[in-house]
Amino acid sequence: MTSRRTRDVPSLVAKAREGDARSVARLISLVENGDPALPEVAAAMAPFAGRAQVVGLTGAPGVGKSTTTNELVRALREAGNRVGVLAVDPSSPFTGGAILGDRIRMQDHTADSGVYIRSMSSRGQLGGLSAATPQAVRVLEGAGCDVILVETVGVGQAEVEIASLADTTLVLLAPGMGDAIQAVKAGVLEIADVFVINKADRPGADATYRDIQGMLALGERGPNEWRPQVVRAIAAKGEGIDDVVAAVGKHRDWLESTGNLRRRREHRASAEISALALGTLRARIGDLSGGTALPLLAARVVDGEIDPHAAAAELVAGL
Amino acid sequence: MTSRRTRDVPSLVAKAREGDARSVARLISLVENGDPALPEVAAAMAPFAGRAQVVGLTGAPGVGKSTTTNELVRALREAGNRVGVLAVDPSSPFTGGAILGDRIRMQDHTADSGVYIRSMSSRGQLGGLSAATPQAVRVLEGAGCDVILVETVGVGQAEVEIASLADTTLVLLAPGMGDAIQAVKAGVLEIADVFVINKADRPGADATYRDIQGMLALGERGPNEWRPQVVRAIAAKGEGIDDVVAAVGKHRDWLESTGNLRRRREHRASAEISALALGTLRARIGDLSGGTALPLLAARVVDGEIDPHAAAAELVAGL
Repeated sequence: MTSRRTRDVPSLVAKAREGDARSVARLISLVENGDPALPEVAAAMAPFAGRAQVVGLTGAPGVGKSTTTNELVRALREAGNRVGVLAVDPSSPFTGGAILGDRIRMQDHTADSGVYIRSMSSRGQLGGLSAATPQAVRVLEGAGCDVILVETVGVGQAEVEIASLADTTLVLLAPGMGDAIQAVKAGVLEIADVFVINKADRPGADATYRDIQGMLALGERGPNEWRPQVVRAIAAKGEGIDDVVAAVGKHRDWLESTGNLRRRREHRASAEISALALGTLRARIGDLSGGTALPLLAARVVDGEIDPHAAAAELVAGL
Repeated sequence: MTSRRTRDVPSLVAKAREGDARSVARLISLVENGDPALPEVAAAMAPFAGRAQVVGLTGAPGVGKSTTTNELVRALREAGNRVGVLAVDPSSPFTGGAILGDRIRMQDHTADSGVYIRSMSSRGQLGGLSAATPQAVRVLEGAGCDVILVETVGVGQAEVEIASLADTTLVLLAPGMGDAIQAVKAGVLEIADVFVINKADRPGADATYRDIQGMLALGERGPNEWRPQVVRAIAAKGEGIDDVVAAVGKHRDWLESTGNLRRRREHRASAEISALALGTLRARIGDLSGGTALPLLAARVVDGEIDPHAAAAELVAGL
């Protein structure tokens, strides 16, 4: 599938560094597909880690994520930033592809060489963000992006996962969706650095605003802790977008001045390294005894001969 | 916290086998808390694995999960089954507890010695099912349950995870919630063995029914594959519950006659063993070099000195 040319990693990296969009796209494809060249790409991108502010953007379907992303890109571009967008879609094994309907709008920016836009499916991690996303972020950092927006449909887990790879997490709400309560149930209240109440001209916007502020008021936080900002916007009219950008900038300043930026990033790197190491170990477990160890133990568990804990201990001993 | 008495596992197991609800509750607490006695409990329960049909029940907030569970328990009890209910709630670190408001209804059954009801929070696995859930299922099997209902609020990932521990997965929908589309987005279409369209007397129920049937018609399946059943119910009035029970029974018959019951359970046991083994390995990674190996590598990744893949390889080599 992958031609020899696309795997010439040093050349692709050099061109991506110069801003060549096709090379950036090819590098992301290599990491997304788990290409054998992935370690080489990862190594080449290592020096550029941390160059960009990574902004996660999530929310339930229908809150206006794509429109908001679109407007944020516009505002960030106007301020002179190079911008990367990773739209991570939950993929459906049923249709075999990602749901990209509302991604079309993003084509507003396809003629702009200062914007890289990429849709990624989250295959292999149902409902979650692709393991390739952090690598794709680093490719965009290598390509000189100042801000990288990672957008994902908020269907629970993904909303929480996005916080684990972003410096700043935006949670979009819209009036009349019972969002405040849903946010609590989904654990979103804990991960949002900035709440954006989109469609703020609709009935119920004030109630949603009050609900969120009320719930934030319940949380105890120390003097050095971030208090999530709540911003109203009407993305479809471009209103409030500057306020969102300002809140994101304010959060970035807070992260830097408190040392939390580095702490968050080290925490993130730990999680990523750990996940990669466990991926390797998972593969080794799968390969034990020519791939028969795990199925045989599973059959014994089903037969009631051994319990899963004892079976797991056997596997680990066999590594 | 745990008294000596509660850790007398052989005695607790013996009493649980005789149907003592308090002993069942204590055993579940031991597995839920990751008590040092957990391996002993697991070993004691091993022989009873697979005695019950495990039925997962999920759906978005507001579709009537608790009411439906309540009515299913009633119907299953009337048919002479011992029934276990595990209600897994997404816990919020913010409030420090599970959202159990609508669990109250289940108290209808607390006086019935043939029903065990247990709420479990999913702490440690944000948005997901507790790792302790499969163990709790086995405790309930040991206590003689014929059917175990595992109910979870469907907020994405949990809906998919529930299928990985259930023999039969029920997905509840309600009219007018855009459920059909949401179901596709959340990957629910792939995991449902039975769709229950609850609140079927509400406007839009027929449309939801048609949408789901339409989407099911799009899927290709072989002659030996299960075609998900779609059942209408009004749980609040007890209507349609017998149809749900019948569909669950039909699925059970299909699972057994095709050999899929064993295949599903072996697959499930594999996943559980593998997850437990990886948990052990994760802990070992965390302990490497007195707990300093991972943080030091993470700092080097943040500094751009090493990439996460190379860092992961170092960790694995150090095990």
